[in-house]
Amino acid sequence: MSSNPTDNIPDIVIGRLPIYLRALNRLAQEGRDITSSHELGQRLGISSAQIRKDLSHFGGFGKQGTGYQISYLQDKLREVLRVDQEWEVALVGAGDLGTAIAHYKGFADRGFHIACVFDASPKRVGQKIGQFTVLSVDDLKTTIQARNIKLGMIAVPAEYAQQVADQLVDAGVKGILNYAPINLNVPSDVRVQYIDPVVHLQRMTYYLP
Amino acid sequence: MSSNPTDNIPDIVIGRLPIYLRALNRLAQEGRDITSSHELGQRLGISSAQIRKDLSHFGGFGKQGTGYQISYLQDKLREVLRVDQEWEVALVGAGDLGTAIAHYKGFADRGFHIACVFDASPKRVGQKIGQFTVLSVDDLKTTIQARNIKLGMIAVPAEYAQQVADQLVDAGVKGILNYAPINLNVPSDVRVQYIDPVVHLQRMTYYLP
Repeated sequence: MSSNPTDNIPDIVIGRLPIYLRALNRLAQEGRDITSSHELGQRLGISSAQIRKDLSHFGGFGKQGTGYQISYLQDKLREVLRVDQEWEVALVGAGDLGTAIAHYKGFADRGFHIACVFDASPKRVGQKIGQFTVLSVDDLKTTIQARNIKLGMIAVPAEYAQQVADQLVDAGVKGILNYAPINLNVPSDVRVQYIDPVVHLQRMTYYLP
Repeated sequence: MSSNPTDNIPDIVIGRLPIYLRALNRLAQEGRDITSSHELGQRLGISSAQIRKDLSHFGGFGKQGTGYQISYLQDKLREVLRVDQEWEVALVGAGDLGTAIAHYKGFADRGFHIACVFDASPKRVGQKIGQFTVLSVDDLKTTIQARNIKLGMIAVPAEYAQQVADQLVDAGVKGILNYAPINLNVPSDVRVQYIDPVVHLQRMTYYLP
């Protein structure tokens, strides 16, 4: 038995917490202090009962009838998701997509920052992308190990993605966000999340009139 | 009762079909003709029983013991997902991300192509992005209606995303892929899918060592 109250939370619940946190961030930006499972549910298209149940895994954050204090709930969710610290991320791929990711401003205040950008192409290595100088993938392992980076993003063409994943895993990365449209094979202690716009589009065409 | 055998398929099953199709495309690229639920399951980290059950919703595509013919299964899944036709997509936002999306080569052979790119900034309107000339959002409704476009992608900053979504819906769009890190409110006959890299990263940090 573990003393960590957040152990053994179903993965599907963990998957909804970033969505709750994002909605709370938005409410805070709007100047709000208090919200309710009902309001969150309406904004997110999730039932208020589901939201209350999900949050109850972590001890329950709200008082019956008075709603949730937004800043407190933000802090608790950041703590549960471990984004109350900032994580360095290694980005591999400095083409159009990698460049857009490197320029993206939305990581910093949500627990992440890109620490380094790698590419295999001699044309790109040494080039500047915003504040980054593109590094060679030959230096990937030493750089990632020296900085103890645990997260990587893959923004290379599909045919190179598995090879890059293998290099990231070999360097000690335990979580990979893969933008290449291909499933990766990784050891069981490494997590992979996928971003593939076509998969999302194909989920919608089934329902189109 | 409907005569359409693909009616009333659970949304979670529909959500897995693009993943199956992507894996089959990959196998076909590797020159393979036949696969099995076992092999697909190993590649995707999904049980073979789940895959067989999902595919059985559509009448079952394989013969017991002989596996699935890849080209046949690709065709059937494209038909079910309605990507045996090509869908035009309107892209709103011509910044870094919109530019990367406009350049992305992975839409064409999977059922989609970007038909037009819009931006609100006078600096960007009229500029070229690859083959596209950026159009003003003032022309969004007339362009989308004239071409009968049903799908839109939003790649604008979060504070403008709801307004753009409203314009897309007003123009007749029924499916929105939203890259802005904000939940959208849309009528019940409009579907939204979200791409937010931070949500994916936050799903992994919970599990990191």
